[in-house]
Formats: sequence, structure tokens, C-alpha cells
Amino acid sequence: MIVNADLLPRGGYLDVVVLIDTLRAGTVAPILFERQLQELALTPSLKLARALDGRLLLGEREGVPPEGFNYGISPAALRGLDLDGQRAVLVSENAPTMLSRVQGARHVLLASLYNAAAATTLALQLAEARIDLVCCGFGGAEDLDDTLTAGVLASEIARRAPDTEFVGGAGLAVSLLRAFPEPLEALWQSRAGHYLRRLELEQDIGICALVAHSEVVPAQVGAELANGTPVYRFAAQRAAPV
Amino acid sequence: MIVNADLLPRGGYLDVVVLIDTLRAGTVAPILFERQLQELALTPSLKLARALDGRLLLGEREGVPPEGFNYGISPAALRGLDLDGQRAVLVSENAPTMLSRVQGARHVLLASLYNAAAATTLALQLAEARIDLVCCGFGGAEDLDDTLTAGVLASEIARRAPDTEFVGGAGLAVSLLRAFPEPLEALWQSRAGHYLRRLELEQDIGICALVAHSEVVPAQVGAELANGTPVYRFAAQRAAPV
Repeated sequence: MIVNADLLPRGGYLDVVVLIDTLRAGTVAPILFERQLQELALTPSLKLARALDGRLLLGEREGVPPEGFNYGISPAALRGLDLDGQRAVLVSENAPTMLSRVQGARHVLLASLYNAAAATTLALQLAEARIDLVCCGFGGAEDLDDTLTAGVLASEIARRAPDTEFVGGAGLAVSLLRAFPEPLEALWQSRAGHYLRRLELEQDIGICALVAHSEVVPAQVGAELANGTPVYRFAAQRAAPV
Repeated sequence: MIVNADLLPRGGYLDVVVLIDTLRAGTVAPILFERQLQELALTPSLKLARALDGRLLLGEREGVPPEGFNYGISPAALRGLDLDGQRAVLVSENAPTMLSRVQGARHVLLASLYNAAAATTLALQLAEARIDLVCCGFGGAEDLDDTLTAGVLASEIARRAPDTEFVGGAGLAVSLLRAFPEPLEALWQSRAGHYLRRLELEQDIGICALVAHSEVVPAQVGAELANGTPVYRFAAQRAAPV
């Protein structure tokens, strides 16, 4: 298995992409599906989200849900919800932008530390020859939280698939594990982490630092343009029993 | 001072760019100027290099100087030359490609571990408000050698300029120093390092791991297109005495 890590999306992906957004969309999504959500749409547009019928609206501006939204995107706050059979739309600037750069891959999975083991298992089951671990980063630059998560995933893939060949930034990402034996510290020091600390959302960093707490892997099931704005739809997928 | 690190060039640089190519162009260039070279041109084209009159030709294909070339680009082999007053052209695929992405900056400096301290001093003297540490990477992906060097430069800038603000990948690069207290190990494990080891050029990795051995900073003094191919010209610059 060829395992590549891109510390920011570069495009041209064909097989399995694991899109990593540890703080926070990649952690929030499996948490929502754990709460029995049926489908999650991601879009960058508040306006578009408000126009979608029959969906819970999740989003934040400076840490607060915008007008008319049901919830923010704090995993700490979302963990206790009962979302049985509901559909939701999550408004985020970064994740949909990065999703636009991985379209064309056969499979697009959403991952974080929170579902790291499940994402590894499913990626290995789906991939024909190559897994691209693609980090969302923060503000258009590489960030510690996603790079460390790519390292966790890459080393776990190598442990399970002995014929793994690291290419691209995979070796660099794995090296970062030596600097941060405790993932929480990398998330705390990341630029995304600084942003959350400024908003006094430290508890979110703590939840996003939990490794392999969920068996759910959000997998892209569709993408549409609505008034020129992309909407990416995800459903829960679980790895086949090994 | 704002200090950014891009683990690959992204463009849009305006103030001071320190382009990092530790294995090997960023190490070879200061070594050549230490040997009293007057001017160094970088270009990706063997054919163009052969057409330039009166210049020493430096380059490699699979570790060997191409036909008609005077020298390879092994720093181990170049350290003993007397190049007093001569001009040279260095053919490299990666460095000129990355140079094309940093044009537009007021100053473009070439750096590695070998001239890390001098590059830091000069960058601080030249910058109005921002220093962009831009890594060349390897094969279009981020690599350990250049990212670690960016970390060395960023932490040295922060030590000397207490008002330094890290943005972009600067924090990530500095974190990598914790994983590699000995730079040689990062260079050894990098993909560029693996490439050199395959060519049995291990001694080059050893020289490129030397930190702050040169006071020379190659600074871009011009760029031209010759038959559509870019040629970037560098001259030696030294920091003003502090």
C-alpha cells in the first residue's frame, strides 16, 4: 500500500482520500453520527444552509451559533444530543474548501484522532493501491493538529499493512509523533488550538485529542452545487469486521 | 517581526524570502561563494547551461556530472576548489522551480543549515516586517530536511527578535526540533536523504548537517529568461556587523 500525506491539499487524488480536520470538523462529524444522525452536509455558506429545508443547522462565527442556527460546532456541546434519523448541515469555511480539492477520488473519508483507528481500517479495506492522508491545515497553512493526526494514521497503516510505502509528507508526519508522544500537547500548541483557546473553547481541544473513540467514519456520498456554492454530503460508514 | 514558514512555496511573497534547500543547493551555494566564486546562476536546463559562455558548469544526473560539465553538485567534492573570480551555473530541477514561486519578493536569500546563522542575521537586517521561510521540499512534497532547517531559522529569529510572531507553518517547523535534537538524523531520514543514500552520497548528508559553518548568504541579484527558460543569478552577501 502506498501511503501519502499532504500537509495541505494538492489535488489529483484518485483512490482513497482521508481528509483530516482534527480541530474540529473531522471530530464533530463522527460524534454527530454516533448520535444517530442520518446525513451531514458540509457547506461554506450560512445563507445556503439557511435555505436548506428540514435540516438542523450547525455552525459558528467566532465561537457562537449564527442567527437561526440550532447548534454551534463544539464537540463538547454536541456529544449529548439525540439526533436519531435527522439530517444536518454544518457550515465551515475550511473543510468545504479543502473538500473541493479532493474531489475526483474514488472515496473521500473524514477523519481525526477521534476516529483514527476506524478510518485506518476502512481506508485499508477500500483502497486499491494508495491512501492519501490530506490535512486541512489552518488559515491556508500547515498546522500541527492535522499533521500529527496524519502521522498517527500513517503509522497505524504501516503497522497493519507491512508492505506500506510512505511517500510525500508521510515520513515527516510520522516523525512528529516523536515530538508529541501526547497528542493533546500538539493540539494545544497548534494554530487551530490557539484560536479555540482565544474563544475559551479549551474543552473542545480535550475531546478532539481523544484517540480512537469512535467506530464511525463519515464517507462522502454526494456533492452538489446550490446556487454556485458546493454542498458535500456525508453518511456514516463502518469498517467491515476484520 | 512576522515569521512565516511554508513547507512548500505558495507564492505571494513581498518582503524577505529565505528559500531553504538543505539537500543540497542551499548548502552548495554558500560553499561555492566561500571558494571565492563571483556569481552563481541557477537554471533547470542542461541545454541552456551548456549554451552559457565562460561559466563553470555544475550539475548531476543520478549523481554523476552530465557530459561537458565541470563538476557535480556534491558539497564534499566542491569544498576544496579555488573558484576565485569565476562564474558558474548550477543545474538543478527543484531549486529553480521553487525560485519561480518566490519571485516578487524584495529579497530572495538561499539558505540551509550550513549558513543558518548568517541567513538569520541578514534576513533580520533586510526585512521591513516579515520573513518568509520557504522550503523547497522534495519531489513536490514537504520534506524533513528543509522543514527542520526552517525550524532552526525560525527559533533563531525568535531568540534574536523578541517581538517575533510565528504564523503559517513556523510553529510546526519549530516543533520538529524536539523530534530531532541532532539535525543529521532528520537529514538522514528525509526523502532527499534517502535519494542521496541510494546514490552512495552519504558524505554529502554529513556536510549538509553542519550548522552555521558559513557566513555567506547567496542573494538573488537578477533573473532572466533565456529561450523561455529561467535563469536566476546569485551573488554572495554578508550581514552587516552587528
